[in-house]
Amino acid sequence: MSEIIEICRRAREASYALAAASRGTKDAALHAMAAALRDNTEQIVEANANDVAAAREAGTPESTVDRLALNPSRVDAMAAGLEELAGLVDPVGEVVRGYTLPNGLELRQVRVPFGVVGIIYEARPNVTADAAGICLKSGNAVLLRGSSSAAQSNAAIVDVLRSAVVEAGLPADVIQGVPGDRAAVKELMQARGLVDVLIPRGGAGLIQTVVSESTVPVIETGVGNCHVYVDAEADLDLALEILLNSKTQRPSVCNAAESLLVHADVADEFLAKALPALVEAGVTVHGDPAIVAAGADVVAEGKNIVAATNEDFGAEYNSLDLSAAVVPDLEGAVEHIRKYSSAHTDAIITRSQAAARRFVQAVDSAAVVVNASTRFTDGGEYGFGAEIGISTQKLHARGPMGLPEMTSTKYVVIGEGQIRT
Amino acid sequence: MSEIIEICRRAREASYALAAASRGTKDAALHAMAAALRDNTEQIVEANANDVAAAREAGTPESTVDRLALNPSRVDAMAAGLEELAGLVDPVGEVVRGYTLPNGLELRQVRVPFGVVGIIYEARPNVTADAAGICLKSGNAVLLRGSSSAAQSNAAIVDVLRSAVVEAGLPADVIQGVPGDRAAVKELMQARGLVDVLIPRGGAGLIQTVVSESTVPVIETGVGNCHVYVDAEADLDLALEILLNSKTQRPSVCNAAESLLVHADVADEFLAKALPALVEAGVTVHGDPAIVAAGADVVAEGKNIVAATNEDFGAEYNSLDLSAAVVPDLEGAVEHIRKYSSAHTDAIITRSQAAARRFVQAVDSAAVVVNASTRFTDGGEYGFGAEIGISTQKLHARGPMGLPEMTSTKYVVIGEGQIRT
Repeated sequence: MSEIIEICRRAREASYALAAASRGTKDAALHAMAAALRDNTEQIVEANANDVAAAREAGTPESTVDRLALNPSRVDAMAAGLEELAGLVDPVGEVVRGYTLPNGLELRQVRVPFGVVGIIYEARPNVTADAAGICLKSGNAVLLRGSSSAAQSNAAIVDVLRSAVVEAGLPADVIQGVPGDRAAVKELMQARGLVDVLIPRGGAGLIQTVVSESTVPVIETGVGNCHVYVDAEADLDLALEILLNSKTQRPSVCNAAESLLVHADVADEFLAKALPALVEAGVTVHGDPAIVAAGADVVAEGKNIVAATNEDFGAEYNSLDLSAAVVPDLEGAVEHIRKYSSAHTDAIITRSQAAARRFVQAVDSAAVVVNASTRFTDGGEYGFGAEIGISTQKLHARGPMGLPEMTSTKYVVIGEGQIRT
Repeated sequence: MSEIIEICRRAREASYALAAASRGTKDAALHAMAAALRDNTEQIVEANANDVAAAREAGTPESTVDRLALNPSRVDAMAAGLEELAGLVDPVGEVVRGYTLPNGLELRQVRVPFGVVGIIYEARPNVTADAAGICLKSGNAVLLRGSSSAAQSNAAIVDVLRSAVVEAGLPADVIQGVPGDRAAVKELMQARGLVDVLIPRGGAGLIQTVVSESTVPVIETGVGNCHVYVDAEADLDLALEILLNSKTQRPSVCNAAESLLVHADVADEFLAKALPALVEAGVTVHGDPAIVAAGADVVAEGKNIVAATNEDFGAEYNSLDLSAAVVPDLEGAVEHIRKYSSAHTDAIITRSQAAARRFVQAVDSAAVVVNASTRFTDGGEYGFGAEIGISTQKLHARGPMGLPEMTSTKYVVIGEGQIRT
């Protein structure tokens, strides 16, 4: 048996005890994990220093090194995250529906853990603690596969967490790291039946690889090409504020806006304010001919207004770039979004109830927003208390995934001798 | 563009109108579809006669020919099924959760159609009307790929249904058949992005093919290796009645019992009654050594009690065969079920509340039953009103799938200018 298969089997075995554990036991484990992180800060930061040194030596950009680096306050934040999880309601056992059938059978659909969850993720070592905590609270044994650049940090964190869950009376193997090279990851992705679900967290390349190579079911997390559509009936001041927030408040994340659509009737008035404001904020606007023409009137020539290519409208920039187009009407906006959106988050700015209703109905995205920033699509903002990622697929979970999304259900049917006739 | 891709694109386009249709429009379409089936009974039965003749000519077993054959009363039953769907609540628009966030954003998670659903199914042409009806009611454009043995029947039914939906004001392309050879089906399974979900309905071979060859997300429907566990605390008369019902009431279906487990403490007493009763009912028992020994005492030698192989305990017989074993205790039953069950439906017979609770907790199957027949795992029995199949996977839907399971959700977020700070 290969090492990976052996790890998967140990996870399955450990998952039985975890699935049967009470909320009290799980919360005690989360508190023990938090305390253990704090008690072993020095050891974790030291292991991380090796990863950071290796990354610098390999010429990794300083922004990536910053994401990788841990210090005592970051370790403390990881611990605090685990303590917050202990305060959340246990999703396991929730009755999703339940009634008594005409023949007296009591039917209940109840949330249960998946069993074994694999997380494949990049860069930030805090994901190791976050994902371990969310999986533990939802009753799932977890297999953690971080990036090789964080290998020593992740191994140190996993060691600390494993000791802590044992203190709380759970098997160490409810949390395991997945060692080895790409072949090992491939084996993990093919461990159908041993692993119940895989969640890739990272860039588009990672997600694509996992989706195409896995036989284990995958929950795809989100690439975001989010749109802000300024309707003919929009409050234009509000629209500008929302657009700037959606684009510039944190451009590197998946719920940042990547594309602006403007109704033709308000294009001149809106763009006269919006284009200078965007340029002022450091944004490069990749516009269709109408945008470029409007830009020529209001922005100094050559200043960050460029002609868009077809690729621009499909792009997730994750930077201070924005594609932009003027559309003839709301239906034109819907058509554009259907063609180019990644179906993550799309917003309309309008005072018209009819326009808002039509946009909400017609735009088939994980989140459809009326008169607010795209930046709210987030488990924390939605009040979930914890988030394992944002799903952009349609099966099982769509949008931010909290604890309930980390469960399956089973039907429990209680009778007193009912047979079928 | 290939014919299949063209069909998928037409389905996507048609799905937009269907997703926006009111329940009134959809119910009118279902009634029109039912009326059209009745009005065109003769044409449908004639087309079916050609399929039946071809099947007989090819030497198809008469039981399979019977599943294929249509007559006026079977066509009428298809129509009645569509009318029943019209009476069910529309799942689209149901608010799954909703609340107002601290910043005033109104958050609602709302059921929406998947968009385009592909159904790949075998033999029975009534599935064509059933699946078309369920998809229409849940707002999904459907691509129907039946078996080639029912090609003329399916084509006739699809033609009739398409005309009917147009009468009701919906695009014909909300219902389409998928023509062509295996290569065409392969193309359908690879139409990721154009088809939102594929549901295979049929034997294990079909399901396996679809799961392994699809890049489109699949909802796996059920192979059933269902267990009946007779606990030490069981009412043995009740246990026997439930066992016989689970095994013999309809042995060819996925929720029929395929395996009996008996607690050692009651094995002698229970088997003395159960083995003769099973043999009397025409069941062949594939037993472990303890069962075979018990059988030698109570059943005439050579009469339908045979030694089980390892394959027996994993088998879905779909026939009057039953694997059987004596287990030392409840935990032994759980272990056996974890090893061999297909996680469809497993039942415990017991008067002990503690045993029932432990079994329900530890057995990780789509349906876990206490003191009732395994045969109840069914959308109709569960009161869903309609069933597209029984999922044995853990993502999205598990157990019988009704109309809500044929939907995804989106988050609708309504604000008045909220931005993220």
